[in-house]
Amino acid sequence: MSQFIVIEGLEGAGKSTVHAHVVAWLQARGISVVNTREPGGTPLAERMRDLVKEVHDEPMTMEAELLLMYAARVQLVRNRIQPALAADCWVVGDRHDWSSLAYQGGGRGIDLQLIRQIKQAVLGDFGPDFILYLDLDPAIGLARAQERGKLDRIEQEQLSFFQRTRATYLALAAAEPNCRLIDASLDEEGVKEAVLTALEQWFVSLAK
Amino acid sequence: MSQFIVIEGLEGAGKSTVHAHVVAWLQARGISVVNTREPGGTPLAERMRDLVKEVHDEPMTMEAELLLMYAARVQLVRNRIQPALAADCWVVGDRHDWSSLAYQGGGRGIDLQLIRQIKQAVLGDFGPDFILYLDLDPAIGLARAQERGKLDRIEQEQLSFFQRTRATYLALAAAEPNCRLIDASLDEEGVKEAVLTALEQWFVSLAK
Repeated sequence: MSQFIVIEGLEGAGKSTVHAHVVAWLQARGISVVNTREPGGTPLAERMRDLVKEVHDEPMTMEAELLLMYAARVQLVRNRIQPALAADCWVVGDRHDWSSLAYQGGGRGIDLQLIRQIKQAVLGDFGPDFILYLDLDPAIGLARAQERGKLDRIEQEQLSFFQRTRATYLALAAAEPNCRLIDASLDEEGVKEAVLTALEQWFVSLAK
Repeated sequence: MSQFIVIEGLEGAGKSTVHAHVVAWLQARGISVVNTREPGGTPLAERMRDLVKEVHDEPMTMEAELLLMYAARVQLVRNRIQPALAADCWVVGDRHDWSSLAYQGGGRGIDLQLIRQIKQAVLGDFGPDFILYLDLDPAIGLARAQERGKLDRIEQEQLSFFQRTRATYLALAAAEPNCRLIDASLDEEGVKEAVLTALEQWFVSLAK
């Protein structure tokens, strides 16, 4: 049965590289893969992504940011992820629901229970089958992100914002049996090895 | 103390005309007035309005539509309405929260309790002090809206959608002591008279 795999982590944690490894690993096993990124991934969701990422003169309230994230997520789930899963494709997502819990919850301080209520209201029980959380000290991740170019509105937050975001990610990862924590401070080969090992173990467990 | 007055009703019910009457009436009493329209009313909220109103190739889910409406509303309340009220201006709004209950709830069929949960989560107890609901048979209102030009994405819905929307408006109006129902099938003078009478009675009750 097709599966929804999500890669989560702070900016600069190496999500795109890991994403490519996961897709290659699945394709080598003859699995059709659909890739997504959040926020975004459909034409309408990408318009919402722009709104969230751009730097505006008008302050964006944290509540509007949260609602935009979920508006984009509903579009992606209904119009792209669920149709792909129904067509026997596996879906590999760069970010999903945990990003809202970690950034808008942990980072901004919105009550996690409230975020879960909104999630439940608009998406019900839908969620990933397997999560790879790439854990990294945000000081390192932000330095990497900065090397890549101009920081977007959220990337411009203080270090303490990302420390709170990471703490929430760590708590979510600790509580979720279908998540594997990957030490993203390893070199690229080390991360790749950890990811493929985690993936293989999970794949074997699926077959049982 | 400054007040937030909202004008609600279906397309073609004459909200803009009534809005102008209310503003003129307040200004004649030396009251400073700020006007808003929803969705929209701030630069970011207007971008969200565009997303909601435009006709897209990608189907917009009713949940995303609802979340966009509230994202826009939070921006408007925090960045425009509340600052205006704090600066002793009165605010006259063309649509507010009831539109979401009537259109996304009644029209689209989203559970009203769920909409109220989202509202409470992002806006708490904030709401209008006085509501003028312009009631009209949607068949008449839509014909008027059609005369004005091209219909937007929501205005292109079936008549039955607007009948459900109206039914929800009527139920809300019946249950809300701070709402006056105005018969919008009257001619322009008749509507104006009804609106100004309702406004005067409410104004007197405020002073008590």
